[in-house]
Parts: sequence; C-alpha cells; structure tokens
Amino acid sequence: LSSADESFADVGLLSPVRVGTAVEAATGDRAFLQAMLDAECALVRAQAEVGVGVGVGADGVGGVPSWAAEEISAAARAERLDVRKIALRARAGGNPVIPLVDDLAAAVSARAAPYVHRGATSQDIVDTALMLVAARSLAVLGDDLRETAEALERLAARHRGTPMAGRTLTQHAVPTTFGLKAAGWRALVLDAAERLAAVRLPAQLGGAAGTLAAFGAVNPDPVNSDPDTGGEGCVGHPPLTPLTPLTLVDAFAAELGLAAPDLPWHCLRTPIADLGSALAFAVGALGKFAADVLLLSRTEIGEVAENLGGGSSAMPHKANPVRATLIASAARQAPALAAILLGSLTAEDERPAGAWHAEWQPLRDLLRLAGGAAYTAAALADGLQVFPERMAANLRLTRGLVVSERLVAVLRDLVGPGEAKALMGRVTQRCAAEGVPLDRDPELSALIPADRLVELVDPVGYLGSAAELVDRALTRALIPTSGTGTK
Amino acid sequence: LSSADESFADVGLLSPVRVGTAVEAATGDRAFLQAMLDAECALVRAQAEVGVGVGVGADGVGGVPSWAAEEISAAARAERLDVRKIALRARAGGNPVIPLVDDLAAAVSARAAPYVHRGATSQDIVDTALMLVAARSLAVLGDDLRETAEALERLAARHRGTPMAGRTLTQHAVPTTFGLKAAGWRALVLDAAERLAAVRLPAQLGGAAGTLAAFGAVNPDPVNSDPDTGGEGCVGHPPLTPLTPLTLVDAFAAELGLAAPDLPWHCLRTPIADLGSALAFAVGALGKFAADVLLLSRTEIGEVAENLGGGSSAMPHKANPVRATLIASAARQAPALAAILLGSLTAEDERPAGAWHAEWQPLRDLLRLAGGAAYTAAALADGLQVFPERMAANLRLTRGLVVSERLVAVLRDLVGPGEAKALMGRVTQRCAAEGVPLDRDPELSALIPADRLVELVDPVGYLGSAAELVDRALTRALIPTSGTGTK
Amino acid sequence: LSSADESFADVGLLSPVRVGTAVEAATGDRAFLQAMLDAECALVRAQAEVGVGVGVGADGVGGVPSWAAEEISAAARAERLDVRKIALRARAGGNPVIPLVDDLAAAVSARAAPYVHRGATSQDIVDTALMLVAARSLAVLGDDLRETAEALERLAARHRGTPMAGRTLTQHAVPTTFGLKAAGWRALVLDAAERLAAVRLPAQLGGAAGTLAAFGAVNPDPVNSDPDTGGEGCVGHPPLTPLTPLTLVDAFAAELGLAAPDLPWHCLRTPIADLGSALAFAVGALGKFAADVLLLSRTEIGEVAENLGGGSSAMPHKANPVRATLIASAARQAPALAAILLGSLTAEDERPAGAWHAEWQPLRDLLRLAGGAAYTAAALADGLQVFPERMAANLRLTRGLVVSERLVAVLRDLVGPGEAKALMGRVTQRCAAEGVPLDRDPELSALIPADRLVELVDPVGYLGSAAELVDRALTRALIPTSGTGTK
Amino acid sequence: LSSADESFADVGLLSPVRVGTAVEAATGDRAFLQAMLDAECALVRAQAEVGVGVGVGADGVGGVPSWAAEEISAAARAERLDVRKIALRARAGGNPVIPLVDDLAAAVSARAAPYVHRGATSQDIVDTALMLVAARSLAVLGDDLRETAEALERLAARHRGTPMAGRTLTQHAVPTTFGLKAAGWRALVLDAAERLAAVRLPAQLGGAAGTLAAFGAVNPDPVNSDPDTGGEGCVGHPPLTPLTPLTLVDAFAAELGLAAPDLPWHCLRTPIADLGSALAFAVGALGKFAADVLLLSRTEIGEVAENLGGGSSAMPHKANPVRATLIASAARQAPALAAILLGSLTAEDERPAGAWHAEWQPLRDLLRLAGGAAYTAAALADGLQVFPERMAANLRLTRGLVVSERLVAVLRDLVGPGEAKALMGRVTQRCAAEGVPLDRDPELSALIPADRLVELVDPVGYLGSAAELVDRALTRALIPTSGTGTK
Repeated sequence: LSSADESFADVGLLSPVRVGTAVEAATGDRAFLQAMLDAECALVRAQAEVGVGVGVGADGVGGVPSWAAEEISAAARAERLDVRKIALRARAGGNPVIPLVDDLAAAVSARAAPYVHRGATSQDIVDTALMLVAARSLAVLGDDLRETAEALERLAARHRGTPMAGRTLTQHAVPTTFGLKAAGWRALVLDAAERLAAVRLPAQLGGAAGTLAAFGAVNPDPVNSDPDTGGEGCVGHPPLTPLTPLTLVDAFAAELGLAAPDLPWHCLRTPIADLGSALAFAVGALGKFAADVLLLSRTEIGEVAENLGGGSSAMPHKANPVRATLIASAARQAPALAAILLGSLTAEDERPAGAWHAEWQPLRDLLRLAGGAAYTAAALADGLQVFPERMAANLRLTRGLVVSERLVAVLRDLVGPGEAKALMGRVTQRCAAEGVPLDRDPELSALIPADRLVELVDPVGYLGSAAELVDRALTRALIPTSGTGTK
Repeated sequence: LSSADESFADVGLLSPVRVGTAVEAATGDRAFLQAMLDAECALVRAQAEVGVGVGVGADGVGGVPSWAAEEISAAARAERLDVRKIALRARAGGNPVIPLVDDLAAAVSARAAPYVHRGATSQDIVDTALMLVAARSLAVLGDDLRETAEALERLAARHRGTPMAGRTLTQHAVPTTFGLKAAGWRALVLDAAERLAAVRLPAQLGGAAGTLAAFGAVNPDPVNSDPDTGGEGCVGHPPLTPLTPLTLVDAFAAELGLAAPDLPWHCLRTPIADLGSALAFAVGALGKFAADVLLLSRTEIGEVAENLGGGSSAMPHKANPVRATLIASAARQAPALAAILLGSLTAEDERPAGAWHAEWQPLRDLLRLAGGAAYTAAALADGLQVFPERMAANLRLTRGLVVSERLVAVLRDLVGPGEAKALMGRVTQRCAAEGVPLDRDPELSALIPADRLVELVDPVGYLGSAAELVDRALTRALIPTSGTGTK
Repeated sequence: LSSADESFADVGLLSPVRVGTAVEAATGDRAFLQAMLDAECALVRAQAEVGVGVGVGADGVGGVPSWAAEEISAAARAERLDVRKIALRARAGGNPVIPLVDDLAAAVSARAAPYVHRGATSQDIVDTALMLVAARSLAVLGDDLRETAEALERLAARHRGTPMAGRTLTQHAVPTTFGLKAAGWRALVLDAAERLAAVRLPAQLGGAAGTLAAFGAVNPDPVNSDPDTGGEGCVGHPPLTPLTPLTLVDAFAAELGLAAPDLPWHCLRTPIADLGSALAFAVGALGKFAADVLLLSRTEIGEVAENLGGGSSAMPHKANPVRATLIASAARQAPALAAILLGSLTAEDERPAGAWHAEWQPLRDLLRLAGGAAYTAAALADGLQVFPERMAANLRLTRGLVVSERLVAVLRDLVGPGEAKALMGRVTQRCAAEGVPLDRDPELSALIPADRLVELVDPVGYLGSAAELVDRALTRALIPTSGTGTK
Repeated sequence: LSSADESFADVGLLSPVRVGTAVEAATGDRAFLQAMLDAECALVRAQAEVGVGVGVGADGVGGVPSWAAEEISAAARAERLDVRKIALRARAGGNPVIPLVDDLAAAVSARAAPYVHRGATSQDIVDTALMLVAARSLAVLGDDLRETAEALERLAARHRGTPMAGRTLTQHAVPTTFGLKAAGWRALVLDAAERLAAVRLPAQLGGAAGTLAAFGAVNPDPVNSDPDTGGEGCVGHPPLTPLTPLTLVDAFAAELGLAAPDLPWHCLRTPIADLGSALAFAVGALGKFAADVLLLSRTEIGEVAENLGGGSSAMPHKANPVRATLIASAARQAPALAAILLGSLTAEDERPAGAWHAEWQPLRDLLRLAGGAAYTAAALADGLQVFPERMAANLRLTRGLVVSERLVAVLRDLVGPGEAKALMGRVTQRCAAEGVPLDRDPELSALIPADRLVELVDPVGYLGSAAELVDRALTRALIPTSGTGTK
C-alpha cells in the first residue's frame, strides 16, 4: 500500500517540474512534520542547556532536565507518527501543532511529557519549521543554480564569438553572439542565487503573544537562590546575571542553525515575504532562459535543442523542448504565489487569523517550483545543443538588412542623415520585394566600393562589444552557497 | 505503509481548510489518474459506438471493436496503477499521459493494446480529466454552498429584526439588523453558486493539433462505398451520411456526461479561465462571511461565536474562530491562483509550451480551497451562535451617537441645515467628552420634547428598510445544483 | 496650459495600448467626475419623481421639489468643477464625494443646496459612478470586440482551406489551416463579448449602512395622512400603498439606465468582481490572438504581418508587430488587476476600510487595458496580412515529417504497431540527418507505391476536420451589444 | 485650461492615498518625459566627454562635439514639449521615444539634430528614465519611511511599559505592551527602508540589441589617427588605449548618478523585479501598521485614534481612521502589481514584445502606492493618539482569563499538569458563565493565598520580556537614505 492508494494525496502528478527532485522531498508533509519535531526538540534542548541546574519556578517554565530533553529528542521522529492523522486533527485548532504535541507527549514517558512544547505557541513551531524547510530547500536550490551557472558559463565562453541574430520585438535587429546571450542568462542566475542567499531565515520563539512571558526568567543568580553556598561558591567569580528568555531564543536558534530573531516575528513577516520575492525572482530568472530556449528551438529557427527532447507517442519526429516547457510552466505560477506571501505582510494583531495560515501552502509551492525549475535548468543548460551553422544561416535570412543600422551610419557620413534614411528605405524595399541582397544593391554599390560593401554587410563585423561584455560578465563569481540563509 | 511514509507527498498538513473534505478526495492525484483513465475509456467506447461494423481504414483510426473497448474499460482502474511512478515518468514528456498510456496498454491483451489512446493527444486526456474532476468537485461544492445558504437563510429569518450597529470604516455608523447582514452573506453565496453552475465544462478531443485528423472519417456511407449492395440494403432507409470525427467528439462527451465542445480548446482556454474566476469568486464570497465573523467574534465585540471554538493548549479560555480563520486563509490565496489561470488564456500555437502545464496545480488548488471553504462555511453558518444582547449593548456604546444622522435630519427641519450641523457638533463633543447621552443633552432637550427625544435616539426606531430588504433577499431561490456544468 | 504642464498627471505616456482610445476618454478622472454628478442628479430627480407633492417629513428625506432637481441637474457639469482640487480634498475623507457635494451645493442656490446628496452616503455615489463608467466603456468595448470578430470571421472564411503547420510545444506537429486558427481566435472574442455582456451593472443606493434609513418613507398614503381630504380624493382609486425607499432605489436605477439592485451592495461586491473577471478574460482572449501574431510574424516564420509595422529610428528594415505587442503588454497586466478586485470581495462590515478604496484604480486600469486591447485588436485583425505561400513553405521544412502521425497509422496496418514505430524512427533519423524527404525514403518506398506515398506525405491531404470545424465555428453569432449590462 | 478639462487624464481622483504627494509629482507623465530627456542629454554629454577631439568614424557614432551636447541639453526641457501629443504618437512604434526624439531634434539646430539619440535604442532611454524616476521617488520615500520610523520610535519608547491585550486569532491571548507593538511596526518600516535602499538602479545603454555596436569604438589612439603629432605628443606618455563603448556606458551612468550596469539589461530585468518586490514589501509593511490601527480604533476597542479622523457629511460623530484606510487600500493593490513585474523577468529575445511594455504602468503605480502609503504613514504615526486607560479597561474584559496561561503554569506545580488543565477549565467556565473574576474564584482561592492570587491575575505582572524586546528593537538604527540606489 502506498500513497498511490490514497486518493487525496498529491504525489506530483500535476507538477512534473518538481516531481522526484530533492526539493520535493525536502518540502513534503513528512519533511514538514520532521521540521516541526526538530523545532520541538531544539526547544527542550535549549531549555535544558540554558537552565541547567535550575529548578522550575512557579512563574515560568525555566529549565528542562537533560534527560527529558534527550528522551523527547529520541522520540521526535516523523516516521513514528501518522502525518495524515495529524493533518486531519489540525482542522480543529487550525494548525497541526496541537495534535503533534499530543502525539509527541504520548510517545514519551509520563514524567517527560510535561516538558514537551513548554511555553511555546503553535506558531513558534510552524514558523520555525518553515524556516528549516526553507533552509534545507535553499541549500539544494543553491547547488542547482550553481550548476546551471557553470554550464551557462561554459556555453558563454565557448560561443563568445558565435554570431547570431539579435532579435527585438520578434524581428531580427542587429547581430549579437550566442555567448552574450548565455552570459546574460548566467547573470540572471547569479542574481537569483545572491537574492536567495541574502534571505535571512530566523528561528521563531515568542510564546502566546510574542512577549516570551511563558518562558519565565531562567538561571537566576545561584547566590541568592541558595544562600548556603553563596559565600564559597562564588569566590573569584563574578555574580551571575539572571538569564532572560532572550538567551533561550538565541540558544534555540543556535540549536537549529537558524538566525536569531531580533523580535518574535509572528506578525512581522519579513522572512516569508523575502523568501517569496527571492524564490519568484529565481523562477523568473530561469523563466527567461527557458523562454529563449523555447523560441530558439522552434522548428523554423532551430538554433538550439535540448539533448533529450520529449517524445510524442503519435508523432515520432517531434523533439519537444520539455525541460524549457516545464521551467516556463513554473515561471507562470511563481509571481502570483509570491503576491500571496507579500499580501500576508498585512497581518493584524499579535498573531493573525488567516494571513498566517495562507502562507504555508504557497510558500511550499514556491519552494517546489523554484527547486524544480533550478533542477531542470541545470540539466537544460548542461545538455543544451547549439547549432552555430543554423545561427549563421538565420543571420543571412534578411540578406543583409540585419546590419542596416550600420549602413545608415556609414551613409550618414557619405550623403547626410536625411538622404541616408531615404536611401536605406529604397534599399530595404528592393531587398524585401525583389530579394536583392544588400551587398549587390545598385544604389549602395554606386556609393561604396564592392569589397567594402561586402565587409559592411557581413554581420560578423558588426558585433560591437559583445565579446568584451561576455568577458566582463564572466568575471563575476557565483557566491558560495554554503550556510545559506542561516547567519 | 501509508503516504505518511513518503516524505514528498502532500497529504493536507499545510492546508487544514480542505483536509479531509470530499473535494480533497475528488481532486487528489489518484482521483486525477482515474479521471484520465475514464477519458481513455470513454474514447474507446465512443470509437466503438460510432464506428460499429466499420473496418479500420488506412488513413485513420476508425472504429474500435466492442470487445476491445470493454477490455480496456475493465482494466482502467487507478488502483491498479502506481500513480507515483507515473508522476515520475511524466517528467520525460512533460505530462502524465505518455506513461499512463504505456501502463494501460500493458494492462490489456496484446490485441487490445493498439486501441488504447488511438488518435488522441495527451492534452485531450488531461483536459478531459480536468473537466471531470471539476464536475465532480463542483457537485460537492454546490451542495455545501446550498447548505451554507440554507443556514444563513435561517439566521436571516430569525434575526430579521435583531438590531445591531452598522459599522463603516470600522466605526459605528447607523443601526442595521443582523438579519440584513446574514441576508447579504446569503446573497453572495447564491451569486457564487450561480457562477459555478454557469461554468460550461466541455470534453476535450482534438488530436495532435486540434484538427481531429487522426480520427479519420468514420462510418462511411455503405451505399456509396459499396454500390453493389446499395439497391437492396437501403430499402426504406434514408442514405447514411458519412460520420465525421465531430460525431465522435459528441459521443465522447456524452459518454462522460460533459458538454460537447464547439471547437477543440487546446489553446482556447475558456473553461479553465471561467473555472478560475468562478472558484475565486466563491472563495471570496465566503471570505466576506468569514471576515465579518472574525470581527464580530472579537473579544471586545462578542456578538457572534463559533459553536466549537478552536482551543489553545496553553490558554484554556481561548475559543478561537477557527472555521472563519480557515476560510479567511483560503480567501487570501484564491485570487492569485485565479490570476494564473486567467494568464493562461495567453497560450501560443495549437498547443502551448508552459501555459497549459501551468494550469494543472493552480486549478486543483483552487478547487480544493473553494471546496474546503464551502465545507467549512456550511459548518460555520449552521453552528453560528448569535448574541442579540451583546449587539444591543454595543449599540448603546455611543450613547445615541449612532443615530446622529437621524437627529441631524430632524434638526434640519427645526433650525435649518447649517445650524443643525453645528448643533450636532456640540452635542457630539459633549457626548464624547462628558459622557452625556443624547437623550439627556441640554441643547437637544430644549428643542425636542423628552419622550420624542428618547424615541428618536432609540436605535431600534431607525432601522430603515432593513426588514423589507431581508424579505426581498430571501425570496431569491438557490438554483438547483444538479447537472452542474455538464450541459 | 494643458495637462502636459502638470507633472503629476497621467495622460497616457506609459500606456500606449490605450492612449487616445474612446475608453480612455470614458474612464478619465473628469469622466468619473461627470458620472458622480450624474449619480447625484439621478438621486434628486428620483426623489422628486417618487415623492411628488409630499412634504419632507421629520424622520427622513422624503420628496425633493422638481425645481430643485432641475436646478441641481443643470449645475452638475464636470467642466464647471476643478477635478484636481476635488482629488486633493478627497484625502481628508478618503473619497472624492465629500468635496464634490460641497462644490455642487455651492454651485446651486441656497434653497436648492440642502437637496443635494440627501440621504446618500459617499459610496452610493462612487459605486454608481463606477457602474456608469463601466457601462459606457463596455459599450465601446463591445463594438471593438464585434469589429474584431468580424475581421477574424473574414480571415477564417477566406483561409478556410489555407494549410499551415500546426505547432505544439513550439514544434511542427501536424498540418492545420489558418482558417481554423482564425476561427479559434474569433471564438475567444465571442466568449469575451458574452462574458462582458452578462455582467450586471446595478446602481448603488443604500445610505450610511445600507438600510436606506435616511431616505425615510416616501409618498405616504394621503388618505391616511390627511383624513380630511380622504373621502373625495380617492373616489374610484384604490388606496395608495405607502412607497418605501425601495421604490426610490428602482427609480434611481431607472434614471441612470442601470440595473436595480436586490440589496445595497456596499459590501457585497459581485458587480466589481464580475467586471474584473470578465475584463481580464477579454484581455486574455485578445492576448492569445496577439501571442500567435507575434510568433507567426517572427523573421524566420513570416506567415503574417501587421499592415503597419512599427518602425525603428535606427533600423529601417524593421517592421515590428506593434499592435500585437501592445495587446500582449495588456495581457500581462490584466490578471493581476482582476486578482485585486476578486480580493476585494473580502470586505468587512457594512462598508469596508480599504477593500473598497482599493478597487477604483485597478477597475479603471482594467477597463482601459481591455478597451485599448480591443481597439488595437480590431485594427490588428482588420489589417492582418497573411502569406499562404510562406505557410506552405514552412510546412515543407520538415520534408514530410509533419505528417509522420499519418504515416505511422498507415504503417501500423501494413507492418503492425511495433514495427511501424521502429520504422518511422529510422525514417525520421534519415530525414533529419541526411535530408531525405519522406516521399523518397527507401524503406517507405519499398512498402508504399510512389504515388500513394507522395499523396500521403502531402500535408494538404491531412487537414482532418479543419474545414468542417471552421464552418461550425462560424455559425456562432456574435451576441448583440446594445444595452450591455444594464438589464 | 487645466488637466481638469481633459477627460482622459488621471489626476488622482481615484487614488487618494497618493494624491498631492511628492512621489506623485515625481512619477507623473511630465516627470517621466523629463527623465527621458535627461537620459538623452546624458548620452550626448557622455559622448562629448568620452570622445573629445575625435572625429566621427564611418563605423560608429564616436564623439559628439561639446557645442552640440550643450545645445541639446539646453533644449531638453519637458515643459517645451507636448506630453499628450507624444503619448498619442507613441502608439505607432509602441513607445514614446520615437516621437520624443523627433521633437527634440526639431527643437535644436539642423547641425545639432543628428547628434540626438545617436546609437541608442528606445529602450535605453525609457529604462534609464524609469531608473531616474525610481531614484527620485525612492529618495522621497526614504524620507517618509524615516519619519514614520522616528514617530514609531517615540511611541515605542513612551509606551514601553503600557500594558494592553495581546490578541491572537482575534481573541485576547496574554498581555503585551503597546510599546512592543509599536516597536514591531518600526522594525518592519526599517526592513522596508533597507530593502528599498538595497535596490540597485543602473543606467541602461546597449543599443539595438545590447551589443553597443552603434556606439562604435571611441577615442582611437591619437598616435595612429594623426601621425604628424605622434612623435612629439607622446613623449613620456604611455600610448592611449582605444576606449570601448563600455567607457561610454560608465560615463553615461555617471552623468545621471545611476549605477553602471554590468551588462545591458534590456532583457535581464533584475532592477525592475527588485523594485517591484521592495516596493510591495514597503507597502505591505505599512499595511501591517494600518491593519492594527484599523482594529485598535474600532468603536468597541478605542485604544488608538487618528488625530484627524475623516468626517462624514451625514454622521457628525464619525471619526473615520482615514489614513489607515488609505494605507490599507494600497496594501491590497501592491502585491499584484509586484507580481506583474516579477512576471516580466520572463522576457524573450534581446528585447521583448510586451513584457517590457507591461512594466511601465505597474511600476509607476507601485511607486505611487508606496510613496503615498509612506507619506500617509508618517502622518498617521506622528499623530496617533494612544489611550492607555482604554487598553487597561480592555485588558480587564476577560476578568483575568487573559493570564490563564500563567495560572496553568502555577497550578501545574501545585496539582500536576493534568489536574491543572481540568481545574482551569472549570474556572474558565465559571468566569464566562457567572462573571466570577479569577481572583475571586473559589477553587483558585482554596489553592492560592488571596494576595498572591491578585498578583498572579494582574496582567501587568505578566508582560514577559516585552520591555527588553522594545529596548533591543530600538537599538537598531535606520540606515541612511542618502544616495539611495545609485551606487
């Protein structure tokens, strides 16, 4: 029996762009469940660490004994719990933490149970889990973006001087190079990687309304709490300052490798909005790459091809640009999902009724779309077949008109700007109507020596700074992805 | 082993609004798989039906033998296939139909296998499945909207004359009734039901590029094709017109209970865009209801409560309006998803590379959000507790200022418009600063007899046409939901 | 001095798709101002009409004398007011009605002034103005959509049998016809026109909180209110029923040619959401047309061209598909704007703080984008140049592979399905690698007689039901646009 | 005659949030026109500067004489041109640069005219103008955000210890302080300011297809170009390296105070996407502030008020929270506009047909919404009236239940976790049903000494780390806004 037998489950059938990827696995419901358990464990461990040797005071939670932290940590394994049953029970309270805490408490001894989730609110656990899942996904994403950038770098370097038609508003404009195009794709990928790496992923710990009240004051001065040992125990030691719950927050974040928050951010949703924008940026950046591949691989253009075109059962000749298609499908979805997350900045009260709950699924979907797009883009870039001869052939399609800008500039010096424009108008018409190539045009030939004209009309001679731009763009390094988002 | 053990699966943990609902089950991956299989079966059955007795011609697909249609139909059961494996293999071609067809062909005899998916393109199957899943979901949705409307009708009738503060821009404005508010909620629910019922859900059948070419001409006129038997065989029968593939399309749609399309709509995405808008409308309509419940159940207002407030592990007094919260969470997501679907109208070519693929997941998510919101709204409306005494108490909070509009109108006749405004300004200030209720204000008392003043200040006397509006609104009937979308 | 000298004004510089169109003029700020004035006038006229001969009672507004209604109507001309100053003063109250009412009252005599805006709330006026502006815009839009559909109908009829490559996932798939493509564009345009025509545009009148309280009871039965004259005045007449404010609402709507609302809809935003969805649909439908034109007019494809390609200052040969580009720019904006309007369904209270205000600009922008796109599409369709010979040439690009689906079907009967697929794989490879056209392929030639092979490979022979589909599609009539939305 | 008389113009009537603000003026069509002219001037000046003394070569544009640069600069004043006429003529080519260049060339002498716009493409000018307008708007925005943050800092400091109910899911949860709430608002404003300041705003210069080809090679080695002076002029000087067009790009950016681009970004839309996300973030951050103000100023809550509540013509007592309403209206629009800009990352070719054109209006609208929201927020924060006594009164509404979390913790130590929960359940019910305050509850009184119970139930004693969190949050400094985005 597998999830295939549970009709309600989404196992990727409708989202081929991400199915089977590492980010899909890192963002599934069981992965979220584990992340929530990780948050619960980090809390008890941090409480144990910060509050060592301190009794639990009447006013707060205080320390947790090490043995309890260990016992709870040992039990907190997602595979021991039933994620579907937790999901179903989540409806009653509106989030999965209440049933999760019940199940976790039931999985440990009666004396350890009271230490589970002590002082925390549901949102502490869900938000921290979202950040953990994001951190794990971004690590994978960063790797795939780096692979994509490296493959594009190879393409840009190899085709630094490969001429092709520069196209604007769908028409051949002037020549460019495939290297410059690939360097541009790479620049966007680097932009994406930088934006993702810059997102700060903080742990969440605030308690019911973000005041940390339920965490009490921990580690009170032992001198005062135990007067008998005061005189001796402290010789040569500065008196201990009572630790506030903010210390617990720092320890909690450190346990998880997440950033320590300045403030509880239950209703200050910067990390979520930032993630949304950066992820949508990444998908959009890859979407540009895919959009170009889709155009360049059209039957009539044929300048690139995927090395593994998707087949068709009925049409054996078809080699569909499937990878680019899947990336394009992600690019059409991501901006709207980011808009939902940006909208959740407007969250009322100390913890909102709806704005928060609206974030979970779109954030997961965005992680998956970005993860899937990056994984797919790495393969697309690595396997992209480039056909310089088709590029050259297409460049000749306009019989020289693709360098008309250059000829106008030359003619301007010869006959003045007004006449240059008029003359080129006539040349253009002759070329379009009668098929006269520019280097054989009678009017042009009368003004410009034949060999010079051939030279001027050669697209390869009008590549401008394309090579220099490629060189400059390739000096930019991909930032390292290690430690993404957790500083 | 269950889906809980597959870390990649989404089993509803992050979407409590829809978890466990009938629409969730109707829209899961296995449900989609079954709908695709249903489409494949309907195709072979329609081919068998339309092409009875006709040989398969060299140019097309023509008829399918009945036994093959039956064998394929018997095998086409989702529980026999592995939906996850199909999902994984969908990456290669960009959609799940290619592996699905392979698996279905493998599940039947070698002589039946060639009849599977004959003449169809992947999009024929996926789109038809989307429509089937939508039809099944809309049936459930319609029921839940009807239940919601019925419960709101009861509330509106019961509270036809229950006064409460009408609030505008967050402030008490003039009195209204809870009945009018509930009637308004109901009107929106009826609007939603009508919009959903009006969405036309057509089957999809077009073949590779929407020309139906691969379906060939079926059932050619035997009279003409075989002149020798013409004289006898047709005695008393009108000559048969050769059936075109359009007949097959109609038979295919009829098999599935879907509407017959005018044209193949591979790149004419009206049904998807309509669904998106109508579903987002429905979620938004319920979102209005939820938004009001969230406000009216705030601690300070307390005019309504859910009968089953969501608890809090740490704060036993809390009765969170969880149902309204979950609906609100859906309302924040739906418009963006509809925008994706509206965006997919811009789909290039005969079948697009990306725009189509971008529809599947958002459409499913919208169905689930709408299904979950409607299910939740039915329970919310049915169980809503209403506290008329709190409404009355809140109405008195402004000490009569809530009817200042009425007093200005009265004073206008007594002292003229300019002075009326100035006088009410002074009254308002006295009331706000010194707590003098309006019916004891010295200036007003000097102008208006005491009993008339008490009467004028009574909010119950200034309900306008609220009751009449409720009556009118409740005469509107909920349209029947049977046959949703399949005409 | 013109608006060019007012740096804050938007006069269309950044939105070429709509600049100079009739919808732009119908939706400008002065047009909105006039619509608000029209609403104020309709109110006083309706009050005069419904309440003729009735004194203004202490409890309400009651009748307005005819002379006052006439005087106010005569003064209510936008060109007499300063729209910018009204806009600036709108900040204080959050909407433009308060300053507008002040200005209108100041523009009439002191005795008429009190009848201005009597009983109404700001939202009554703004919402009614939005509906008026929408109705005026939709009338223009409907005309442009009709013109577009007519031009596309001509194209579809003329090119009913013009073969071209059917393209799927960017690749040549099987042949289709340009007529079928144009018929599909037209079908979407008709869908759009129907959706726009179905939007119900109601007047808005509810007073402060939608109870109509401030409109009082009008035209009370003279028999009862004045018993002295009762005996005579009513001889032979049924006793008059006191008219409720609902009668006033109906009269108000009738004055404006708008639909009468069931309920005040201050917080029931169905008309706005419906407009948003229908307008975004229209833009998306035209976006599909534009997307195809952009592809078909690419330099390498060249199957269509705009008759008035946009020039380039530097590149005289360029004939940019500017109209299609502008429509495409609208199609990228519209879905998000519709999402804002769908989001405003979630509007709290009797009149919301923000959700309502958020509608105005996006609704106007959507009207303008749709109006501009339709205006542009009519010109694009009317002037579209079609090049059948380029279509034919492109169809030959794959040397016959574009009909491989057909050959597989034929081969299946000759050699069985498995071998048919394998054989076509070899044929495809030879064709792609060595340029062997399919009708000269040695393996195929060995199996199929030469003339039959030539026939089979001819794309014109594999158009399926394209012509029949065109015929069927063209039987669908464009619905009349007169009376759009005002029933 | 003013723009009020031009019915097509948008002069702010439908967008009170931004009307009359400095950002509105900085983003109007005339301001855009001036920014485009500034770009044209910067180009000629940069060409003059980089190419001093160099003749214009046949292959490129080369140097521009200083006198021409000066003459063009002097003429390039928006008030001399007719922005509406330029807008109208923009339809032909799809953007306003072609008519702008015509008008600018016509405004200078015949010998200067050829130097206008030399080598540039329309997108160079529009994109550079977008960046200039953004830079000018962000400077204003930064100031308003700083003022907002400063006012919020004052509120946070003043109310560091002012207790109020912490509200979660609309219900009182546990106490917090108004200082912590204000500190949270401030933190979001700082986040917004940092995100806006981090957006890099580069000039755009690439020529027709981004290769800079039309700018030619400038400043060729004078030794070679003028052999006569070679021997002497270069004694002791290293030979000059020929300057490439990249030098021109740097000079162009420096002229404008914009960042120098790594690559032409015609189709690499990072700056636009970044702006969109950062602006939507800013609006959302302010939207959180507004959402809380809207709730806290509700009639029943009354904890804050705007100092200048928006009036109502009919209801003199109403003091609408207009500023918060206007900000809320912006917050509902911004995410969708950002989604359009994120979507434009997917821009095909060297310059796209539609994706680029779709950016202009949404970017302008976002700048205006953010500018208006920030301007309004500064006034809202500065004038916010805070009513601590109402906060205290509301805190007492639950008769002590607001600290039930604390009591459960205390009882846990006294009677064990299970019984603590059960006991508090009974206490809660008594309190809710019979109105027994917690400090007089019989069961609690039996367990806890009276004075200790009074102390425990006092909300002021359960503020947790609120004060410490405020202190920590206020140590964070607002980053300086000077030089926004132009590094």
